[in-house]
Amino acid sequence: MKPTLYYAPNTCALAAHIALEEAGADVDYVRLDLGRGDTRHPDYLKINPKGRVPVVLCERGILSESPAILAWIAQAWPQAQLSPVTDPWACGQVNAFNNFLSGTLHGIGYAGIFRSMRFADGEAAQAAVKDKAYQTVAETLAMIEHKLDGEHWVHGDAYTTSDIYLAVLFGWRRALDRVLPAFPKLAAHEARVLARPAAQRAIAAELAAEACMFQGAA
Amino acid sequence: MKPTLYYAPNTCALAAHIALEEAGADVDYVRLDLGRGDTRHPDYLKINPKGRVPVVLCERGILSESPAILAWIAQAWPQAQLSPVTDPWACGQVNAFNNFLSGTLHGIGYAGIFRSMRFADGEAAQAAVKDKAYQTVAETLAMIEHKLDGEHWVHGDAYTTSDIYLAVLFGWRRALDRVLPAFPKLAAHEARVLARPAAQRAIAAELAAEACMFQGAA
Repeated sequence: MKPTLYYAPNTCALAAHIALEEAGADVDYVRLDLGRGDTRHPDYLKINPKGRVPVVLCERGILSESPAILAWIAQAWPQAQLSPVTDPWACGQVNAFNNFLSGTLHGIGYAGIFRSMRFADGEAAQAAVKDKAYQTVAETLAMIEHKLDGEHWVHGDAYTTSDIYLAVLFGWRRALDRVLPAFPKLAAHEARVLARPAAQRAIAAELAAEACMFQGAA
Repeated sequence: MKPTLYYAPNTCALAAHIALEEAGADVDYVRLDLGRGDTRHPDYLKINPKGRVPVVLCERGILSESPAILAWIAQAWPQAQLSPVTDPWACGQVNAFNNFLSGTLHGIGYAGIFRSMRFADGEAAQAAVKDKAYQTVAETLAMIEHKLDGEHWVHGDAYTTSDIYLAVLFGWRRALDRVLPAFPKLAAHEARVLARPAAQRAIAAELAAEACMFQGAA
């Protein structure tokens, strides 16, 4: 069986989707509808008990966690050169940046805004979590903005999975209910990532896809 | 220059320390004192602007984030076989588990207990964060307990960085101010990890070390 990426639109699964397109990977895609609760459907929980996307399913099992999926793609399709996989230190830089995006920008920042119920019970406490999470997102993006030079990619001359993942998460600012400071270098970086044919193919496919799982279950 | 691990006792840096011992890596170690605020010292912030440990410094720069440091160790000292580095899918499983430990068990769970100020301002909200974080730690450990079989390692027959990292984070339950449920398979797993000579060397070294940085600065 081909590896299958389970994704939902408007999630961080888009990073894996774009990376697979960049790699020219021969994989299948299954679209889930978060709003309909597909990730909590018993049939999906049999595949991924954590009830999250992205996950990759193949005959060896499942692979979860965006940084791990991105590292797998880079290593399994090395000709795409999405990470310097034969240089442990340079590869470590890509992993470290992706882990920071996953743990801090997404896991504490955006998650505190969009999923404050994961961090505290009660409306007042959740509002406080959301306030702090906005600070975390703004500070994290400011730190990254400071490091970008406006011309090169996150790790220099080479385009890596870090660029894809960053552009996807930076794009989430459009879904926020508060306006963040301007980050001109991040915005230019995002535009350069999204202009690549692989990114355009992945985004178009997510927009066009019929739900392949639980079709008619709504 | 040799790579240098900056660590502080009683932090997740112990996982990198043990892994380097397992690898027989020829590296230097610098001990910081969290209680004295060493990680906020201007000289340390010049090395690691994030002000966290662990970080590895070498002539190419710094490497941060435990999962990335562990993956680097496994790839740079492959003879130690701390991760199946030549099998992208199997290596992905190690990365995914370590990322889950970093992002969920440590980043949301333990951090919400020990560092609730990262998640909300105000005493009441921080108390609510702490309550929820205890739930996250208990649920995450229960999920891992359920998967362990009591005999093998996290990923089966092979001992990997996931075993080291898990044992270190499981050990933190002793620093909690509430009693968690019993996790007998996790406790047995921790004991097997800590019984290994490399773990014993790392722990002994952390206990015995003189502070190498900011000595006399207190």
